[in-house]
Amino acid sequence: MQETRLDTARIRAARRMIDPVFLDSPLYRCEALEPALGCAVSVKLETANPVRSFKGRGTELVASRLAADAERAAVCASAGNLGQALAWSGRRRGLDVTVVASRFATRVKLDRIRELGAGLELVDGDHEVARERAAAVARHDGIRLVEDSLDIETCEGAATIGLELLEPEDTAPSFDTVLIALGGGALATGVGHVLKALAPGVEVICVQPLGAPALTLSWRRRSVVTTDSADTIADGVAGRYPIPAVLDDLLLVADDAVLVQEASIIAGMRMLLDHAGLVVEPSAALGIAAILEDRDRFAGRHVVTIVCGSNVDVDAYRRWVGAAPTRRS
Amino acid sequence: MQETRLDTARIRAARRMIDPVFLDSPLYRCEALEPALGCAVSVKLETANPVRSFKGRGTELVASRLAADAERAAVCASAGNLGQALAWSGRRRGLDVTVVASRFATRVKLDRIRELGAGLELVDGDHEVARERAAAVARHDGIRLVEDSLDIETCEGAATIGLELLEPEDTAPSFDTVLIALGGGALATGVGHVLKALAPGVEVICVQPLGAPALTLSWRRRSVVTTDSADTIADGVAGRYPIPAVLDDLLLVADDAVLVQEASIIAGMRMLLDHAGLVVEPSAALGIAAILEDRDRFAGRHVVTIVCGSNVDVDAYRRWVGAAPTRRS
Repeated sequence: MQETRLDTARIRAARRMIDPVFLDSPLYRCEALEPALGCAVSVKLETANPVRSFKGRGTELVASRLAADAERAAVCASAGNLGQALAWSGRRRGLDVTVVASRFATRVKLDRIRELGAGLELVDGDHEVARERAAAVARHDGIRLVEDSLDIETCEGAATIGLELLEPEDTAPSFDTVLIALGGGALATGVGHVLKALAPGVEVICVQPLGAPALTLSWRRRSVVTTDSADTIADGVAGRYPIPAVLDDLLLVADDAVLVQEASIIAGMRMLLDHAGLVVEPSAALGIAAILEDRDRFAGRHVVTIVCGSNVDVDAYRRWVGAAPTRRS
Repeated sequence: MQETRLDTARIRAARRMIDPVFLDSPLYRCEALEPALGCAVSVKLETANPVRSFKGRGTELVASRLAADAERAAVCASAGNLGQALAWSGRRRGLDVTVVASRFATRVKLDRIRELGAGLELVDGDHEVARERAAAVARHDGIRLVEDSLDIETCEGAATIGLELLEPEDTAPSFDTVLIALGGGALATGVGHVLKALAPGVEVICVQPLGAPALTLSWRRRSVVTTDSADTIADGVAGRYPIPAVLDDLLLVADDAVLVQEASIIAGMRMLLDHAGLVVEPSAALGIAAILEDRDRFAGRHVVTIVCGSNVDVDAYRRWVGAAPTRRS
């Protein structure tokens, strides 16, 4: 394939710099989900770790390189998961971490960022406003700006998930398709790079909410499309300004990018709770939502969905999934 | 220490016979739980696998030895988790598995046993009645009776969790205490054996519901105590007739055995949902319940709790945890 910004050998090496608590996350078939979905479904569970999302893989790389360079501070914009992970990785290396977030961000994510000892600055706007502010802070303070999906460490960290999907490496993958939540693009380009490099027969499908479609529209048009607003409960993937370099990589590794409705995301969250016993945040249900919206496409196939985070406000979660329990007929 | 029926070298060897999907389950600090509990808490998560409980570790040993001996069938009594795991392990080895269960068992556990292709026989009584019936089936059909906690494979399988708690082996454990759900005793004697053999400074505390206290009362009296009934929502640990050989092992490895109230089990389930994003079955909340009932005992310590299963009926679960969300103050 044409070359992305990522490098498979560097991704393999990255595993040694990441705290093992984030590595080798569970990967298993969820047969109880399958009757309702019409295909074989395996889950790669990225929530059973101290920050309840996959973002620790990337922030471990960022923070260990900063520490190696004797840097003392970093700032990032975050919808909450990157900030929480950077706070965790920074704390154990004595880094001074500042997180800029929207004041409308998921409350428990903001609480956890504070509890992990990071500085938290809230902006009166959405994630894109937070990104601008974080860049200004970095310039003003002369410290490292950690940009999710643009910074190669965030992509390489996510890419280690791809290596784990392909273990043991001497056997062919048992699955046909991987469904990946699409936000800034680090997860999709990271995992996608590894799959295309090592198992090109596996289909890579990105999934984004219809209410926050900028990167999907960009992928379809093969040039950056921005949107004026984002309107989705999937806060972790609600960007509006795709990064050109990330789009270039995505064009090389994604076989498709699909958009799903909010009702499907909620149905996916509820299915994961009822049939798999998994609490997930909306972004982590995008894969199931994509199957629900196009069962024919996946019929008879073996699909892996990456459950990328579980940081939800309890009240909102109960509102979303708390209706009459779905019964297995 | 005096010798239990278990052997550490054999437990190490057992890991190679267990499907990796059950091994190396996540172990991580859950800081969000800690303000409410007053101690450091790590979770060993045994639910992120195809049967949503730790029982697959033991049934993999049982089934692989049966297959090696060219046996074709096995029967067990089960509250649901052992049966599900034996069905899973047996299916892939072509074994004909029969599970005997109470007709009052958790419905989703019974559904999953059937869906995994095992024969399911329901008895009109509790788990002890199911045990009698399974023994009769084994005698009548001349097939292997798999007895949870008595059969050494079930203990050795559980014991592999103990090895994982102590990794990497060349460093001292970072925790002081392990809280273990006490039912038939396989989990407690298995994990307890490994801890006492390899890290004798770690405290082993078993936790049982006040409504199903037989093995705890036996441990305290140092001889078998049976009860006339068991009354607890923690269906996975609701036995009445402790097995003498298991009690003998438990007396060698448990530092304490405590009983907790139903309300504490429910509070534990709710805390694990709200602060850790984990759906658990009642038995898996026993450890948190024990902390909630005796915060002073654990204050300032680092406690590991084994989250041993997540097979719950959705309706019952919502009833238990679905009250007004607990808010973090």
